[in-house]
Amino acid sequence: MGQALERREHTCGVGCCSTASMGDTMADLPKSVRINEEGPREGFQIEKGPIPTTRKIELIEALSETGLKQIQVVSFVNPKRVPGMADAEDVVRGFTPRPGVDYTALWLNEKGLERARATGKLTLQGKISIYASEKFSLKNNNRTTAQEFEYARRVLESYLEHRIPVERGSVAAAFGCNYQGDIPLQGILDIVRRIFELADEYGVKLKELSFADTMAWATPLQIKRLLGAVRGKYPDIRLSLHLHDTRGMGIANAYAGLEMGAEMFDACVAGLGGCPFAAHKGAAGNVCTEDLVFMCQEMGIETGIDLDKMIECAQLAEDIVGHPLPGSVKLGGSLASLRHAVALA
Amino acid sequence: MGQALERREHTCGVGCCSTASMGDTMADLPKSVRINEEGPREGFQIEKGPIPTTRKIELIEALSETGLKQIQVVSFVNPKRVPGMADAEDVVRGFTPRPGVDYTALWLNEKGLERARATGKLTLQGKISIYASEKFSLKNNNRTTAQEFEYARRVLESYLEHRIPVERGSVAAAFGCNYQGDIPLQGILDIVRRIFELADEYGVKLKELSFADTMAWATPLQIKRLLGAVRGKYPDIRLSLHLHDTRGMGIANAYAGLEMGAEMFDACVAGLGGCPFAAHKGAAGNVCTEDLVFMCQEMGIETGIDLDKMIECAQLAEDIVGHPLPGSVKLGGSLASLRHAVALA
Repeated sequence: MGQALERREHTCGVGCCSTASMGDTMADLPKSVRINEEGPREGFQIEKGPIPTTRKIELIEALSETGLKQIQVVSFVNPKRVPGMADAEDVVRGFTPRPGVDYTALWLNEKGLERARATGKLTLQGKISIYASEKFSLKNNNRTTAQEFEYARRVLESYLEHRIPVERGSVAAAFGCNYQGDIPLQGILDIVRRIFELADEYGVKLKELSFADTMAWATPLQIKRLLGAVRGKYPDIRLSLHLHDTRGMGIANAYAGLEMGAEMFDACVAGLGGCPFAAHKGAAGNVCTEDLVFMCQEMGIETGIDLDKMIECAQLAEDIVGHPLPGSVKLGGSLASLRHAVALA
Repeated sequence: MGQALERREHTCGVGCCSTASMGDTMADLPKSVRINEEGPREGFQIEKGPIPTTRKIELIEALSETGLKQIQVVSFVNPKRVPGMADAEDVVRGFTPRPGVDYTALWLNEKGLERARATGKLTLQGKISIYASEKFSLKNNNRTTAQEFEYARRVLESYLEHRIPVERGSVAAAFGCNYQGDIPLQGILDIVRRIFELADEYGVKLKELSFADTMAWATPLQIKRLLGAVRGKYPDIRLSLHLHDTRGMGIANAYAGLEMGAEMFDACVAGLGGCPFAAHKGAAGNVCTEDLVFMCQEMGIETGIDLDKMIECAQLAEDIVGHPLPGSVKLGGSLASLRHAVALA
């Protein structure tokens, strides 16, 4: 394994197009992917903590040494609602940035954006973000989908005013919703179309579409259907996935995404962001970074990430939160050392 | 979701053959799969225990009520080497079999087979089983691959003498080996050919080929390559997978197997068979039964298994071993109750 795979746009993923010549040409996999590490943000915001600020900084700096190019370090949200992020400014102030790494943050409103801007240290990324589930919008934000688009318009105007680049359209709860149930494919395509229309109206050229399986309803088949349909309509857009692992489908869904050409993944070191073995029942985190890196590397897809260093980060994350985290490769180990031992034997 | 998917032998799995018409026709998935539950055997043999015999029986009887058609209940092995299986006869004697369920056992030699036969209660299934890795054969059995085939011949003769049906060829460590490293595809195909030749010599018609990722080296791409190559040569054989989850690839590998038409999977309730959070570092069990059932059901593949009952079994298994087990759906829950709540709202 480990050979680079040429990306082939029109080669069948299951080999049926050329069953006779099974080999390196059978998968429509990207040559490389970009992983957006969200562990410090997704993870520490859910921990009952308190996690010392210095230890958050320690993890961010360790992650910076792995080859990651993008790390979401904090969220600027109401500290009364998310006490684990009350020290967001201190975290951002505290870490030493590594050149070539984008440090990003999450915010949910103008005030959060102001806090992020005020740090002067973060890469600010705007996006047009809509929930696929109207019931979830109503419950969370007290807005209908039509009102969500009006809100997104104001957010977009704010980004443009502050010269914050907007390259991403984002659809949350795209695969199902605990309040609305299954989300029809056509409904998501309609939302995507309206996102592009809104961007066009402001002369904004979106480069990337992100689909979040916020409540872990997705299966690989659904991933393929949705990304396949989107790719059919928007062949030049970069596809990104945000996959929660509550029902254990995270890596399989990521694989299905890779087969549909997804090139960007949010992921959390050690599977931070929820611990099925502690109090956070059912709130499992994002797909685990080092497990995703392992899969990609073994399939010949470049990530730019040093797997062994990422495993060390996962062990550090576990040490910081003080309880087991769900990732597997941090226990099972990479295959590199085994191959090395075999070669020496 | 939940609609039945027609099996289509020559439809592209990634939708590239018909990008314009993404829909139910995009996957080469089987209509139904058979799951061979191995939790009681894989799981209890690795637990430091001791697990009371009555509790093993309790789990076997609960599993019998889920719709499973095959449960491997014990292994007949040296109790000095595997103390957790010293009560194998008592377990088999103790449970009340449910009509329509095959209860099976594992044995590694003639003595084990004798013990299994003596129970008079088990479905005895013979197989021709070879390690893909010669170094693993040498280390475990002190036999070369050539000697393994000679041994397999004697085992086959014993099965025929005892009128034990032999329908399965089995290749262990088929995707990589801690002692030998990567296993070339051609090497596995050679072993498969020799397994068929041996069967032919005795007039035995194999119906199924099983590939075990014994040491968790496989990725979905490898699964597709191997099963694709095998399916190309032996289009009528039933494909079966035994997938260990040490590096978190189990469900993704199962999905890749499904896309290549695999119709049978070994699996362990709750992911029994190793606990990455206890002393059994890196020795994770088989792919988790209820997670696999969840994925299949949500993709419209029939399993015949009641997911909620299987989740209850997973919770029971966790209670029996007394520590967390790795399965996800037992915590995340099925989607049926969420859909039901949405429908009522």
